[in-house]
Amino acid sequence: MTWLDLPADTGFGVTNLPYGVFSVGGDRPRTGVAIGDFVLDLAAATGDPVHATGSLNAFLARGPAAWSALRDRLTGWFTGTDDTVAAHLVPRADVRLHLPFAVADYVDFYSSQHHASNLGALFRPGSPPLTPNWKHLPIGYHGRAGTVQVSGVPVVRPSGQRKAPADPVPTFGPSGRLDIEAEVGFVVGAPASGPVAVGDFAAHVFGVCVVNDWSARDLQAWEYVPLGPFLGKSFATSVSPWVVPLAALEAARVDPPARDVEVLPYLDDTKARWGLDLRLTVSLNGVEVSNPPFRHLYWTAPQQLAHLTVNGATLRTGDLFASGTVSGAEPDERGSLLELAWNGETPLRLPDGSTRTFLEDGDTVTISATAPAIDGTRLSLGEVTATIEPAR
Amino acid sequence: MTWLDLPADTGFGVTNLPYGVFSVGGDRPRTGVAIGDFVLDLAAATGDPVHATGSLNAFLARGPAAWSALRDRLTGWFTGTDDTVAAHLVPRADVRLHLPFAVADYVDFYSSQHHASNLGALFRPGSPPLTPNWKHLPIGYHGRAGTVQVSGVPVVRPSGQRKAPADPVPTFGPSGRLDIEAEVGFVVGAPASGPVAVGDFAAHVFGVCVVNDWSARDLQAWEYVPLGPFLGKSFATSVSPWVVPLAALEAARVDPPARDVEVLPYLDDTKARWGLDLRLTVSLNGVEVSNPPFRHLYWTAPQQLAHLTVNGATLRTGDLFASGTVSGAEPDERGSLLELAWNGETPLRLPDGSTRTFLEDGDTVTISATAPAIDGTRLSLGEVTATIEPAR
Repeated sequence: MTWLDLPADTGFGVTNLPYGVFSVGGDRPRTGVAIGDFVLDLAAATGDPVHATGSLNAFLARGPAAWSALRDRLTGWFTGTDDTVAAHLVPRADVRLHLPFAVADYVDFYSSQHHASNLGALFRPGSPPLTPNWKHLPIGYHGRAGTVQVSGVPVVRPSGQRKAPADPVPTFGPSGRLDIEAEVGFVVGAPASGPVAVGDFAAHVFGVCVVNDWSARDLQAWEYVPLGPFLGKSFATSVSPWVVPLAALEAARVDPPARDVEVLPYLDDTKARWGLDLRLTVSLNGVEVSNPPFRHLYWTAPQQLAHLTVNGATLRTGDLFASGTVSGAEPDERGSLLELAWNGETPLRLPDGSTRTFLEDGDTVTISATAPAIDGTRLSLGEVTATIEPAR
Repeated sequence: MTWLDLPADTGFGVTNLPYGVFSVGGDRPRTGVAIGDFVLDLAAATGDPVHATGSLNAFLARGPAAWSALRDRLTGWFTGTDDTVAAHLVPRADVRLHLPFAVADYVDFYSSQHHASNLGALFRPGSPPLTPNWKHLPIGYHGRAGTVQVSGVPVVRPSGQRKAPADPVPTFGPSGRLDIEAEVGFVVGAPASGPVAVGDFAAHVFGVCVVNDWSARDLQAWEYVPLGPFLGKSFATSVSPWVVPLAALEAARVDPPARDVEVLPYLDDTKARWGLDLRLTVSLNGVEVSNPPFRHLYWTAPQQLAHLTVNGATLRTGDLFASGTVSGAEPDERGSLLELAWNGETPLRLPDGSTRTFLEDGDTVTISATAPAIDGTRLSLGEVTATIEPAR
């Protein structure tokens, strides 16, 4: 129960309480918590200067006990009879949302077996779709932290080198194969000076957001051997503005999927149970084109974090690691246009009669996600959206 | 001329003036300039609080006019007759040197043809040593900014997965093939919101440092297909403590090497003349084992920066991009043990009778570099050193 007047199916009920950074008009960005159609101004409601810094980082760095204490306090405020904090609610329609945290390092994994198999078939025809290492370790690589941007910021079509197999030499120009990758991102709060065991995942990771890892497939195909994706990815990565705490996702936890290859002990997550029953929705110009299911991901976030740190690599507050493109088994569960239109062979047909193989200038892509909440409703992870601007 | 009593062959004369961050005893880290056997305390000498922040970033962000003005002022102080600033000189032997700048994004290139050819032959036997894209674009990838550390900090041997071709499954344990990569790093000062043309290089890059990009070859070989190096690199990257301004390297500039493949216009550096006649020295436990020449690198730093940003990727103050391993044509000019000992086939023999194919616990590696100075002497880029500690 709550004294708040919450819309039915809000997705931002009292079991969610995600954190973001907002401003109203030209005032200073500060931390807020989404509740129904409002944002609670945490700087004002708590008086704690940590929430007036314009970034979640300093709060995240305080660690799990502080996260839990504040969540309990918020729950108390919203479910009690005292509506004192109502004075600090701002209509969500009035706020501007900012990048919620300063990204330290950004790592992108590749943990959907369906996605990796599809890309292997498309990028390396004639070879087995999964590389020999794929089921032994969660493959990942570092992306560009400096070009992570918040939902709503446009994406300028990147230019670069591309060379079709039949071309004698590469040419330069705007990407002709601009794509999306629907992913879920995990935000590190508490730093670590060395390996983080699978079981210690929740002591370091604060929460999750929705990620669109924009990809220029033509640039990527020409550059990625032997050192991996670079300019095909580094122009932009968009994240949703609300970071949903792991604590809100208890009802979404499911058993990890069955694996058919035994993993090394440091990757054993049978006791961790951090499969997550998240459902993603990808919309192109307002039309739903895919519903990728997250729960089938082969590698879970605790495994990704354990792998990322097992060599002694340190973690910083603000480190972001993303799942990799979420693709399910079915054609309408794929998380990239490359897969949805199968390398251009089966174009998507939109209701206006147009077709798409990759993104056109002016297209708007929105990825949203939901999860089961402990009260039986579904909570929202919000959405990440951007419109494509022409190359400059 | 200078009123300073400079040692002969100091390498830190009045034509060098590199910037670092130092402290004495337990006091607060602040910016200093190396001069002879001393460090000038810039915070005290200038009274400018930008030099008391414990990082070069805020000063670097001011841009080329500010860099140039301060360099002129320093030159005036050291070459004039007034020795007032002598009061702010601290013996270099008394200072502790810190990481000189907060690393934003770290990119590692792969721009030595000899190195890339050697690694291609070792990692992909039977295939052409250079991939088809190598002479069309400077191949690079993002590394882990959070594990860049200053010279002197030990390197703990990383553990991880490795699988020799004959092994049925991977095993986990300390790397048995821990290696170095002798490189030169370029430090971005002035940010950019989009492409940086080859000719605008010096308007954004402040200076250079020496880099050791530690590499676990066994981890790298098993993980790097298809998304590139990850845990094989992310445990540590060491940088020298002194950032030498580009302005000090005028006498080191040479024509770029001849290229036998025509490059796209955005990579044309024929007018930029930013080949650099730097000489690197690699020492293992005090014994010189290699002298990699930098001037022959196929891709120059302005080309690397133009490529890095041509897709619209933004630059931040503190971005670091490294050349890639510097290897020359001769066997004693190679910049990694993998090449020097040719994948273990020709072990290095040290004067104590021992041999090395890769690094052993307790080994100390020091990489130093020099460049011609405008007064005919050689200036020092300092050194980057670290000792290997056993796996934990």
